[in-house]
Amino acid sequence: MHTLHHRDGHHGWDRSLLPRSEIAPGDVVEMVLADCFGGQLGPDAVPADVTALDLALANPLTGPVFVHGVEPGDVLAVEILDLEPGGTGWTAVIPGFGLLADVFPHPHVVVSQIADGVVRFGDVARLPARPFLGTIGVAPAADGPHSVIPPRNVGGNLDCRDIGVGATLLLPVEVPGALLSVGDPHAAQGDGEVCGTAVETTARVRLRVGVRRGPRLAAPQIESPAGTSSAAGRRLMTTGVGPDLYAGGREATLAMVERLGADHGLAPSDAYALCSVAAHLRILEVVDAPNWVVGLDLDLGVLG
Amino acid sequence: MHTLHHRDGHHGWDRSLLPRSEIAPGDVVEMVLADCFGGQLGPDAVPADVTALDLALANPLTGPVFVHGVEPGDVLAVEILDLEPGGTGWTAVIPGFGLLADVFPHPHVVVSQIADGVVRFGDVARLPARPFLGTIGVAPAADGPHSVIPPRNVGGNLDCRDIGVGATLLLPVEVPGALLSVGDPHAAQGDGEVCGTAVETTARVRLRVGVRRGPRLAAPQIESPAGTSSAAGRRLMTTGVGPDLYAGGREATLAMVERLGADHGLAPSDAYALCSVAAHLRILEVVDAPNWVVGLDLDLGVLG
Repeated sequence: MHTLHHRDGHHGWDRSLLPRSEIAPGDVVEMVLADCFGGQLGPDAVPADVTALDLALANPLTGPVFVHGVEPGDVLAVEILDLEPGGTGWTAVIPGFGLLADVFPHPHVVVSQIADGVVRFGDVARLPARPFLGTIGVAPAADGPHSVIPPRNVGGNLDCRDIGVGATLLLPVEVPGALLSVGDPHAAQGDGEVCGTAVETTARVRLRVGVRRGPRLAAPQIESPAGTSSAAGRRLMTTGVGPDLYAGGREATLAMVERLGADHGLAPSDAYALCSVAAHLRILEVVDAPNWVVGLDLDLGVLG
Repeated sequence: MHTLHHRDGHHGWDRSLLPRSEIAPGDVVEMVLADCFGGQLGPDAVPADVTALDLALANPLTGPVFVHGVEPGDVLAVEILDLEPGGTGWTAVIPGFGLLADVFPHPHVVVSQIADGVVRFGDVARLPARPFLGTIGVAPAADGPHSVIPPRNVGGNLDCRDIGVGATLLLPVEVPGALLSVGDPHAAQGDGEVCGTAVETTARVRLRVGVRRGPRLAAPQIESPAGTSSAAGRRLMTTGVGPDLYAGGREATLAMVERLGADHGLAPSDAYALCSVAAHLRILEVVDAPNWVVGLDLDLGVLG
């Protein structure tokens, strides 16, 4: 077991960062994660605290982890074994950020209490806690540093709520050792994350980090246990990452057609038609400018 | 009970069409619906039959229904009481149509058998049957005729899989009597309908048609029973209809913030933040050029 703490982490993506841990494929890593504000908001946060945020400290990452024997072109497979969120969460409307930034120019914050699988979202609502990792990725090939805010084809700030316990995230590797880093845990979020933040919290997470060799991935993919809508099978979500939602939908669909052929032997036209009748296009994140994430989500149980 | 048959229906939207039936708010209407190909494909359809399709006959509608006392600015509330799909379905890849039209230039068709709540999708897959109305709308104010292919703010070819039994579709009314028409039943579809068609079939449907007076709607909304993820409450989905997915997401979010304020007393900033942590942006349809439909889907059970 390898344990890493956010105290020893970093800001931004950079292939030149020194690894904080070196592991072998199949190893389990435990990480202690800061919240996306780096602890700048307290349990009594008010809108003025949002105004005072130093956004240069936003989205601190724990890592990077160097995985021995993993090379560019490989696929890093990260299984989320366990994820324990903190007890307090913050959802902030940050001026200039979010899908309706022009409509909501003033700072706002809702403080949540997280306990027993429930998020008490201020006095507004009660949500099931569905913790996941907002940011998880590997270092890009291009020399850094690169901002942590936009998600990339190598992952990062994907803000995809399916990256929770039981899921396996597949990431294309671009540098030797992959250089995995993780942060930005969320206790709950909707697809899109429209105001720009989720129920932001701290977390302790355990991950099993493996490698797959085979066709290169163009963008992240997520394999999940089947949802409540299906008794059997597993789910696969392909993604498209970039500044245009339509193009993202196309990329996700192309990736699904490819995997249905490679894994299940479907002819491309049959796979395309199956996506049309059974797979769902989801806007996973539309606020981490300039890149949005579109997912195509298929219950593989339909294949019998 | 009023019964209408697709034999007496129409193609395209036009406010000058003579009503096929006149009803009062609260009345129940039964409709017999053609499939979206107007019966041009048979149970043994092959790709050459797709090439031979006369697309001028596509998407025939049953109606229009004139609703007494309904005026421009009102909201038509259409509850789907019952929807019985046919026994055969067709999913076609039509050259020049679909999210990946450039990648799939050749015609293709998968014939499905629909029985006992299951869609046997050729020999490719088995899906739960989730029948819904692909096209349901009212006449636009502007003089027609208007193509039936693109969905509009007054509804039409929304291809939203939530418009099934138990759901209530809310439509903004633009002409006296609303002039409701329905067609294009689907036995199953994924969000996006990426190849351009669903499991297209015939159907018999029963609708209760009512009216609501209050704030004008900018675009359709769907009220549904809660899904399996929630034991209680109801779901609300707002939509944005137009040629840009990002703008569609914004419109759907604005509409949700407005309804959470009007119906539940939430302050706008709280409503916006709640959407971020609990509501899901879905690409409902991205093939009926030039207009796509984005939905924002919220389980109202979170409000307690």
